[in-house]
Amino acid sequence: MEPVTAADVDAAHARIRGHVRRTPVLAIDPTDLGLADGPAMQAKLDVLQPTGSFKARGAVSLLTAWDVPDAGVVAASGGNFGLAIAWAARRLGHRATIVVPATSPAEKIDPIRALGAEVVVVDGYYAAAAQEARRRVAEGGALLAHAYDQPPVVAGQGTATRELLEEVGVDTVLVACGGGGLLAGAVAAADDRARIVAVETTGTPTLHAALAAGEPVDVEVSGVAASALGAARIGEHAWAIRGSLATTLLVEDADVTDAQARLWRAARIVAEPAGAVALAALTSGCYVPAPDERVGILVCGANTDPGSVVRPSTT
Amino acid sequence: MEPVTAADVDAAHARIRGHVRRTPVLAIDPTDLGLADGPAMQAKLDVLQPTGSFKARGAVSLLTAWDVPDAGVVAASGGNFGLAIAWAARRLGHRATIVVPATSPAEKIDPIRALGAEVVVVDGYYAAAAQEARRRVAEGGALLAHAYDQPPVVAGQGTATRELLEEVGVDTVLVACGGGGLLAGAVAAADDRARIVAVETTGTPTLHAALAAGEPVDVEVSGVAASALGAARIGEHAWAIRGSLATTLLVEDADVTDAQARLWRAARIVAEPAGAVALAALTSGCYVPAPDERVGILVCGANTDPGSVVRPSTT
Repeated sequence: MEPVTAADVDAAHARIRGHVRRTPVLAIDPTDLGLADGPAMQAKLDVLQPTGSFKARGAVSLLTAWDVPDAGVVAASGGNFGLAIAWAARRLGHRATIVVPATSPAEKIDPIRALGAEVVVVDGYYAAAAQEARRRVAEGGALLAHAYDQPPVVAGQGTATRELLEEVGVDTVLVACGGGGLLAGAVAAADDRARIVAVETTGTPTLHAALAAGEPVDVEVSGVAASALGAARIGEHAWAIRGSLATTLLVEDADVTDAQARLWRAARIVAEPAGAVALAALTSGCYVPAPDERVGILVCGANTDPGSVVRPSTT
Repeated sequence: MEPVTAADVDAAHARIRGHVRRTPVLAIDPTDLGLADGPAMQAKLDVLQPTGSFKARGAVSLLTAWDVPDAGVVAASGGNFGLAIAWAARRLGHRATIVVPATSPAEKIDPIRALGAEVVVVDGYYAAAAQEARRRVAEGGALLAHAYDQPPVVAGQGTATRELLEEVGVDTVLVACGGGGLLAGAVAAADDRARIVAVETTGTPTLHAALAAGEPVDVEVSGVAASALGAARIGEHAWAIRGSLATTLLVEDADVTDAQARLWRAARIVAEPAGAVALAALTSGCYVPAPDERVGILVCGANTDPGSVVRPSTT
């Protein structure tokens, strides 16, 4: 497997410009988050991306890098990636088929359908959806889109970190990790110009489990971030860059919901749990920056009931 | 009354820097808002300001322009301005007394108290609170802070428009109007470099009522924006700049809640009703830009239950 490079991220950035947003970076004083005084935290607000998450980057990057046949693109995802592929396909004039497990709630599926994608519901969980997606690709010649392990997807996700580093000087970037596409992209984009720290929840520890086992292994995921960081195992691309990470951290679900609430109070930004995982490493005290360390954070998704950031979610 | 000038806005901008945030400007395609294709709308996201609204600008501007006696600052407001004065006073090391009418809900008062301000609750409505604030100022020598009619407050609010125009080229800026501090500041900041359009709701038409009467008159306010745009009459500063406005528009409450929902869907931004009034002029079709017209919009407050932007509020 060829690793994704900074040049790949640059090329992805040129392709997706004009389709996705260059999202703003907001400086937030640590004291506004209830932390000790220090340099402002630089929050890259990819929550403001079309479809509400960074996945729009990877989706457009993929569909502009690889040929999309007349049969279109097929993805297995009842979440942010499925929504992003449906959106990108419509924008670029391609057919899209999104295979979702029957366990996906209607509020996740309806927006995908509203974007004109064909939604195929299959019994069972994500694995069943993934199998059906592969079957359809094999049968019909469509392009298979993978949420975190295709080079153009990883390079596309890397553009978030690229833009952050282009805009502000930071020493360290905290990045949430599920399948690891955003993380592998961040390492490629940083290209040793900033330290990259991976953050997982204790319920979705694909990278930690792989590091413990010495190789990617399946994990039973659970908890508040499971719907968005719920890859069963770390991707090949993220596994390949493990040696380039400054460190890998675990946060608890309660740290994540606390980070969501603090972010709302400090700056009226809504983040879904997975979108606040990186911030949670800071607000929970799990990651303690050095006195002068400038920290960047990818706030990477907002696809939740916005009311849930100020009161406990019922789900 | 001396009108506030662009130079006053420049001076306010220099004073408030380092205290309030330079909020980002986000380009949003009209199609993402369900509108016909055209130039991107430039949304100035003052929802991300400390205390959740542009009022933080005017509050810091006032407390850095005028001498604050040991007795501190007094303001009558159970809403965004009271919160902003409490926040600015704490930040700048002053005492703050916020007089609120007994009709103010606890969720508005508690955050003011949490910032260390003394909260005085008086029976009756806003007029009673304003009277008690003046009484305290006369008795104790504190500085009276007025939500929209003191020159440093108007100049401070103008910095939002100043930053917008500095950052992007726009032909027109849509601005919500209640007491008119943000509006008068926008006219001063634009200084004929952009057309300024005032937008009110049918339930809070202080400017329209004044224009109809030929002078500022009291209005009985109601509707979704009343808590934040609920000044009973247009301020002297806003009245003075009426001749510089490109036009003045009225939107319905339903247009406002629709704009809130569209903004969430398009960019995962939470705006309170008053914060979405300017946008509502565009999304309702009340304001139709020329084909090449570049429109800027002040999205100026987010102090609402964030869940209310996706489902009808119960209040």
